[in-house]
Amino acid sequence: MGILESIRGPQDLKKLDAGELGRLAAEIREFLINAVSRTGGHLGPNLGVVELTIALHRVFDSPKDRIVFDVGHQTYVHKLLTGRQDFSKLRKEGGLSGYPSRAESPHDIVENQHASVALSWADGIAKADRLAGRRDRSVVAVVGDGALTGGMTWEALNNVAADRKLPLVIVVNDNGHSYNPTIGGLATHLAALRTTDGYEHFLERTKNALDRTPFVGRSVYDALHGAKKGLKDFIAPQGMFEDLGLKYVGPIDGHDVAAVENALRRAQGFGGPVIVHCITEKGRGYSFAEESDERFHQVKVIDPDTGKPVSVAGKDWTTVFGEEMVRLGTERQDIVAITAAMRRSTGLAPFAERFPDRFFDVGIAEQHAAASAAGLATAGLHPVVSVYATFMNRCFDQLLMDVALHHCGVTFILDRAGITGDDGASHNGMWDMAVLQVVPGLRIAAPRDADQLRSQMREAVAVDDAPTVVRYSKGTVGPEVAAVGTVGGMDVLRGSAEDEADVLIVSVGALAPMCLEIADRLAEQGISTTVLDPRWVKPVNEALPAVARRHRLVVTVEDGVRAGGVGAAIAQSLRDSEVDVPLRDFGIPARFLDHAERSRVLARVGLTAADIARRVSGVFAGLGRDEMVFPG
Amino acid sequence: MGILESIRGPQDLKKLDAGELGRLAAEIREFLINAVSRTGGHLGPNLGVVELTIALHRVFDSPKDRIVFDVGHQTYVHKLLTGRQDFSKLRKEGGLSGYPSRAESPHDIVENQHASVALSWADGIAKADRLAGRRDRSVVAVVGDGALTGGMTWEALNNVAADRKLPLVIVVNDNGHSYNPTIGGLATHLAALRTTDGYEHFLERTKNALDRTPFVGRSVYDALHGAKKGLKDFIAPQGMFEDLGLKYVGPIDGHDVAAVENALRRAQGFGGPVIVHCITEKGRGYSFAEESDERFHQVKVIDPDTGKPVSVAGKDWTTVFGEEMVRLGTERQDIVAITAAMRRSTGLAPFAERFPDRFFDVGIAEQHAAASAAGLATAGLHPVVSVYATFMNRCFDQLLMDVALHHCGVTFILDRAGITGDDGASHNGMWDMAVLQVVPGLRIAAPRDADQLRSQMREAVAVDDAPTVVRYSKGTVGPEVAAVGTVGGMDVLRGSAEDEADVLIVSVGALAPMCLEIADRLAEQGISTTVLDPRWVKPVNEALPAVARRHRLVVTVEDGVRAGGVGAAIAQSLRDSEVDVPLRDFGIPARFLDHAERSRVLARVGLTAADIARRVSGVFAGLGRDEMVFPG
Repeated sequence: MGILESIRGPQDLKKLDAGELGRLAAEIREFLINAVSRTGGHLGPNLGVVELTIALHRVFDSPKDRIVFDVGHQTYVHKLLTGRQDFSKLRKEGGLSGYPSRAESPHDIVENQHASVALSWADGIAKADRLAGRRDRSVVAVVGDGALTGGMTWEALNNVAADRKLPLVIVVNDNGHSYNPTIGGLATHLAALRTTDGYEHFLERTKNALDRTPFVGRSVYDALHGAKKGLKDFIAPQGMFEDLGLKYVGPIDGHDVAAVENALRRAQGFGGPVIVHCITEKGRGYSFAEESDERFHQVKVIDPDTGKPVSVAGKDWTTVFGEEMVRLGTERQDIVAITAAMRRSTGLAPFAERFPDRFFDVGIAEQHAAASAAGLATAGLHPVVSVYATFMNRCFDQLLMDVALHHCGVTFILDRAGITGDDGASHNGMWDMAVLQVVPGLRIAAPRDADQLRSQMREAVAVDDAPTVVRYSKGTVGPEVAAVGTVGGMDVLRGSAEDEADVLIVSVGALAPMCLEIADRLAEQGISTTVLDPRWVKPVNEALPAVARRHRLVVTVEDGVRAGGVGAAIAQSLRDSEVDVPLRDFGIPARFLDHAERSRVLARVGLTAADIARRVSGVFAGLGRDEMVFPG
Repeated sequence: MGILESIRGPQDLKKLDAGELGRLAAEIREFLINAVSRTGGHLGPNLGVVELTIALHRVFDSPKDRIVFDVGHQTYVHKLLTGRQDFSKLRKEGGLSGYPSRAESPHDIVENQHASVALSWADGIAKADRLAGRRDRSVVAVVGDGALTGGMTWEALNNVAADRKLPLVIVVNDNGHSYNPTIGGLATHLAALRTTDGYEHFLERTKNALDRTPFVGRSVYDALHGAKKGLKDFIAPQGMFEDLGLKYVGPIDGHDVAAVENALRRAQGFGGPVIVHCITEKGRGYSFAEESDERFHQVKVIDPDTGKPVSVAGKDWTTVFGEEMVRLGTERQDIVAITAAMRRSTGLAPFAERFPDRFFDVGIAEQHAAASAAGLATAGLHPVVSVYATFMNRCFDQLLMDVALHHCGVTFILDRAGITGDDGASHNGMWDMAVLQVVPGLRIAAPRDADQLRSQMREAVAVDDAPTVVRYSKGTVGPEVAAVGTVGGMDVLRGSAEDEADVLIVSVGALAPMCLEIADRLAEQGISTTVLDPRWVKPVNEALPAVARRHRLVVTVEDGVRAGGVGAAIAQSLRDSEVDVPLRDFGIPARFLDHAERSRVLARVGLTAADIARRVSGVFAGLGRDEMVFPG
């Protein structure tokens, strides 16, 4: 039996000696490479935190002590050490979540996987503990260097630092790669910290030198020693954190369990906020990861012996976007691209290589991405900001108050829109089409296939006086869905917009094939349909109410939250046009959805052709009865 | 004729000598005190930036050079110097905006008055200029010390600092008071910068001392001099900004025009990002402001000779909230309060004085406010986060992904909800009821009067497993509106929920008196009504569809954006219950609304009893005709 198998919980770690810890680390790496290559997942980040996590669980007493992980894709090791060693269904229905999960374990605290939140949580927990007089537990935040580029971290650091008696251990897991190499002034500062060997050595050398100079030497040494702060900054520029009032310990070799333990113990006993700066190597111990650009941040199913994906799927939405961006960049010099630390994941890498001057990676800083885009647009450029749909919520205010209020021509690309599934509740990009309905002047495109994505991108960047959004799903793009007609700029996918029919189905984006299947199923029951793809789902197309009026029932189907979504907007538009044709809107309920494959999640919420067809035929059968209910 | 009157634009400033500049500053202060005391407005901030603004316009050539003001309530002086000297209708319809306005002047760039955005805008403009090869203009961001506590500033600083060749002047207007005294580690750092007299003096003193010690002295001096950075930090802890890679100039006396000009010219010529740290005094030159706690940040109409408000209005919503918070705090030890730099404006000052340990001012940092509240709640407390409704958008993601996803019992108080009017587009709190509809488990209360506010606050803090929101208007709370009945927890204000009637009017919050007037007007036309106040507008009350079914038309009236708002949610709920009674939803269109008194803005968007009654009677008259349109 290996050591890893014998670890049932953190307490089992505490008995191990240095040699056993080394073997455990090796076993964990082997486990991760084998397990994650079979399921896909965040391999690189977890290979980088093996020793750090072991040290955390040896020094602290979780779950009594509260260890809050930021962007929890770095918690596989934590799971292994807290009784969760069945990774066979990682990120699949019924299997382990790819992130912390309170349902899985009392050792997990924060499930939100949007970056930079851990320190705020830890601040709240530590302050509550102090108010309650609870002195028996430590609070630890584990934050990546990438997360430090997010504004939330700054807000939290500023607050934590104001409270020098607040016991709080802030572990900075610095691998120099958040997704891409971490950028910005802070990254430079961290790099400076990394490359020093500490001011203690300098002090010692200085003392020795000065001791050889009698009379003056010793007193100068004392003066220097008294001026600790200035000297430390001279050698190791710790100024930033210490100026803010934060004790700094580091840099520590994050792959040396004993060194990390030692630093954590010092921090734990300090009685105020302490930053423990650990240097780690993303992908450590797996050569293919170490040699890769993004350090195997997230992998699909791979062959562990080659590091290569075992199957090559069709072209995905992201790639189609990335290719078209290069074409647009070639045609238009005014197009610039912005990513929030996701150059490759958002498909912008080819654009960045081709047009490095016109590409901006702002770090995990969506707020700045949006507001600086407003600045760029005001000065004559057309920025394309590409983020995952779920992260757009981070810059909702800037999209509204900076971009839209100032009529800036900025295009937001929302990748991974709708149900993404396997990454769980905080990664589903299901909010955008609802939340953005309130933004004056904003237009939203939901392309149904690759051709539409390309053409709608072109339509979007042609708008220079208002924000535009193009949103699409995660994964492989489906086959082309041809239009059989058009009306007012909308595509008719089935039937005719001029004719009457029983049911008008309004299809949003990639759900077009599902909507056509719904139409097939309804046809089997003798219910005639028109299937319409409005292409732009905000604003509601002006021609839509007249089309709706030629039907007895309107059905909308969207891969977004129902509350205030596209269906609700269409219903409002019909009311405003005095078209009181009954409508039923199908979409995602406003619930947090547990991880599972996308198709399983869609089925769970009733977004299947069979379910919708059945419900529509039921509604259709009941039409006309409502009027009778009213007795007037 | 005074000097101020002779200033038609910035070019007129450049001819003035030092004596004239001093007289101009005095004239501007006199003008501000007289003008703003008559209209109300941001008096304190503008009294503090008189000399700074003069210097900015003497050094830079606006509008060619781009001067971007953060939170533009500090731009009255800028307005006076750029041809806008008629303050008689400040913040009123047809008069000057209280903030920058591109419609008013080409000198104005950013209209968004949410804090901390200026640096991101300036970064975008400067980068666009460089790409375009435009080298003839400077870009300047003017940022308050309070705005530096916002995460956006950090994100922007990190990006700006990464680009050492980006010419950008960052003026930090440091008055130590954003709204309240600025808090946090950064504030301490700024204070340290303020209280030093510079490292040059120290170097000189050291040199003199060491020169008296032959042999060793000089070489130690040289070593120290070589180690500039470390030494500077020893004396003036500039580490934070310089560690990030930003040139720092300061501290400068912001009331010394020549000193500020000198610093700005050095910064302008530097060729990279430079922070110019100016120390100013909020309320300067007006004794009542200088002596006041919040430095007359914003005043109502006052008597300039006493600094006292000329009329005392009735009790406002904020005061009712603040008083009830003290009662709740007394009753429940687990209730804590959080403000984002608005202790007094949000009514939390009495709570803060009574329970200082349970009060947290996080700075202008709504994201941290929400996420740290999640931490506090997880550890057993019930946080009440009070912000202006429009600023809630800044923490939408944290409310969703930290508070709601984790089922945290946190109460958000949204003050200044709905149309606020006189502060213009970015201050109207019209988004919350729509945007928050998507948040799973969240409950929203919209109290109609002071009694309801108090009781709904109590209902809100009793919820310990989900976020709650209580939202209310700006200004004086209206008279009590009594319920004549209840149904399923909703209040019936007119008619009976059990009886049938022609029109069901669903009234949201403070619009209850307007809805009763609509009912009166409809009654005059023989149309019977039920008026219902659901009290909690999210989720839609389960009893509502059954009530709706007993009417021929449902009308909703809300002080929030229509798209995805309460009316849209009720319509969806009726559809889900197969209740296809026609509905018409009245609210605010998704448009940015120019400043004017609240009543004028409501009238402009058709939210008056007369307009709504007229439109409802029109719809009612047409009911039944729609069915005939469908030829089936």
